[in-house]
Amino acid sequence: MDKIKVIFDTDPGVDDAMALLFLHRAPQVDLVGVTTTFGNGRIATTTWNALYLTERFGIDAPVASGTAAPLVGPVPAPTEFVHGANALGDIDLPERITREADPRPAHRFIIDTVRANPGEITIVAVGRMTNLALALREDPAIVGLVREIIIMGGAFGYNGFHGNVTPVAEANIYGDPLAADEVFGGTWPITVVGLDVTQRTQMTTEYLQALAKDGGEVGRFIWDITRFYVAFHHAAGVPNMFVHDSSAVAYLLDPTLFATRRGALRVVTEGLAIGQTIQKPDDYNFPPGAWDDRPSHAICIDVDPARLLALYRRTIVGGA
Amino acid sequence: MDKIKVIFDTDPGVDDAMALLFLHRAPQVDLVGVTTTFGNGRIATTTWNALYLTERFGIDAPVASGTAAPLVGPVPAPTEFVHGANALGDIDLPERITREADPRPAHRFIIDTVRANPGEITIVAVGRMTNLALALREDPAIVGLVREIIIMGGAFGYNGFHGNVTPVAEANIYGDPLAADEVFGGTWPITVVGLDVTQRTQMTTEYLQALAKDGGEVGRFIWDITRFYVAFHHAAGVPNMFVHDSSAVAYLLDPTLFATRRGALRVVTEGLAIGQTIQKPDDYNFPPGAWDDRPSHAICIDVDPARLLALYRRTIVGGA
Repeated sequence: MDKIKVIFDTDPGVDDAMALLFLHRAPQVDLVGVTTTFGNGRIATTTWNALYLTERFGIDAPVASGTAAPLVGPVPAPTEFVHGANALGDIDLPERITREADPRPAHRFIIDTVRANPGEITIVAVGRMTNLALALREDPAIVGLVREIIIMGGAFGYNGFHGNVTPVAEANIYGDPLAADEVFGGTWPITVVGLDVTQRTQMTTEYLQALAKDGGEVGRFIWDITRFYVAFHHAAGVPNMFVHDSSAVAYLLDPTLFATRRGALRVVTEGLAIGQTIQKPDDYNFPPGAWDDRPSHAICIDVDPARLLALYRRTIVGGA
Repeated sequence: MDKIKVIFDTDPGVDDAMALLFLHRAPQVDLVGVTTTFGNGRIATTTWNALYLTERFGIDAPVASGTAAPLVGPVPAPTEFVHGANALGDIDLPERITREADPRPAHRFIIDTVRANPGEITIVAVGRMTNLALALREDPAIVGLVREIIIMGGAFGYNGFHGNVTPVAEANIYGDPLAADEVFGGTWPITVVGLDVTQRTQMTTEYLQALAKDGGEVGRFIWDITRFYVAFHHAAGVPNMFVHDSSAVAYLLDPTLFATRRGALRVVTEGLAIGQTIQKPDDYNFPPGAWDDRPSHAICIDVDPARLLALYRRTIVGGA
């Protein structure tokens, strides 16, 4: 069977690194590129981390650096209090690496790779949507050439969950709301994996300890980088660790883990609710409004956390 | 035991009329005034309807007419497609009534009544929040003199429910978002009964038939005015009738029917999400934002529909 060709658009980032290793270890995935965004760190940091991770774990995919700032507005401060100053949980990192980034900017790399593999590329995007929006602006026809886009971002009020930057806004979307609104306006097939499901799936300390024990170098690395991230969760009163970016990879590997709802998507780009993702469900009528004539996309509204956690462990540890 | 003194702020309206009759029949309620808002009809229509209903059913409370328009912006078109052109389901109404409105504007009536009964007045507000906002602007000290405010309005994304005017906005709040934001900024004790719970409680045709059969003149009147309203629900693909305004009365009579969550409330007053109600739960930390230094209020997040329907029937029909 042909493997699924994947571009991973990411801002590593602790849970980004965990998702990258999830993709790397998944036998059905052919990782054809890693593109970087600002977010969990500044662009120089996240790009360096992507190069470091691919070098250290023998991941062949090229790394292309994305833009440093959102479509409008200043470069936001990185979320160092979540991911650490080096965005990998402040573990010790080498001074030098040998690998270098692809010369193309991320959005150009995305366009070229999609055009070279029409209908075959799945983009798993777990950072700000800026690279995707720039690709769409530069070459709008790629909407018909992408196999699927799976986005970690947003919050839709399901299961009692809400935003994590404001009561309604999730960090990836909040970090470039205009980019997300433009991406959701594209007719490419999109599935959004938001906080409604990513916060329902949580890794306990025992789960991470077992990964460290059974998962070889990868498992030990995950343990090391998650110490800072788990401490942030604890400080916020959350006993376990949310599974954000790896939930998008889990959707790629096994969409039956999730329940979805279809409808047009908009992102609030101003005011009190800036960064909020809003879906108009296809099966519900409203008076004419801002969702009309927008493409229908899927959002995840439910998840089977136990099966997702088993899939992650099985993929990282190997075996049955 | 002393009865609960209630001002009913309302835009009758089919479900407003049902809620007014619910209040009228509740033995523990002393209805001390009815104030009207625009919404389900223009202000002349809703005020006439309030006078008609109080006259027809022998309700002693004075009726004071509210303002015709929201705090900012034009007078919106009434929702005739929901409540009918006369806002009472287009039943035959008499040409004349004898009762006349109190000479004071609604917000002044509210201030005077609260000041005359310090700590004793509960306001059940089921229309636009304009009268309450005007009262608050004219006499800010009343926040310390009101016993409780129970508001039917808003939508918070619980139980998979969302707005009814846009995917995030409910009609009462959408009709004057600035007024609602100002009211939620007051330190009076507020409980919000939104679509999250009002759409979970539904009256079937069988339920309404039984009210008509057992509820005397009141029951038959409810049957008559709900024909148009039920037809609107059917046209929207909703098999039964949502219980909006009477859910606020039910909260007054028996708050144990509901589960609540506390937190600061804001209303979006511009852009895509205009009219959305957003709560920052008290038990969840966010970076500094627009919810800081706002008073904590309760919103309803769950309801026991069977017990609520039994309470409504018992109150209307009488007996055990």
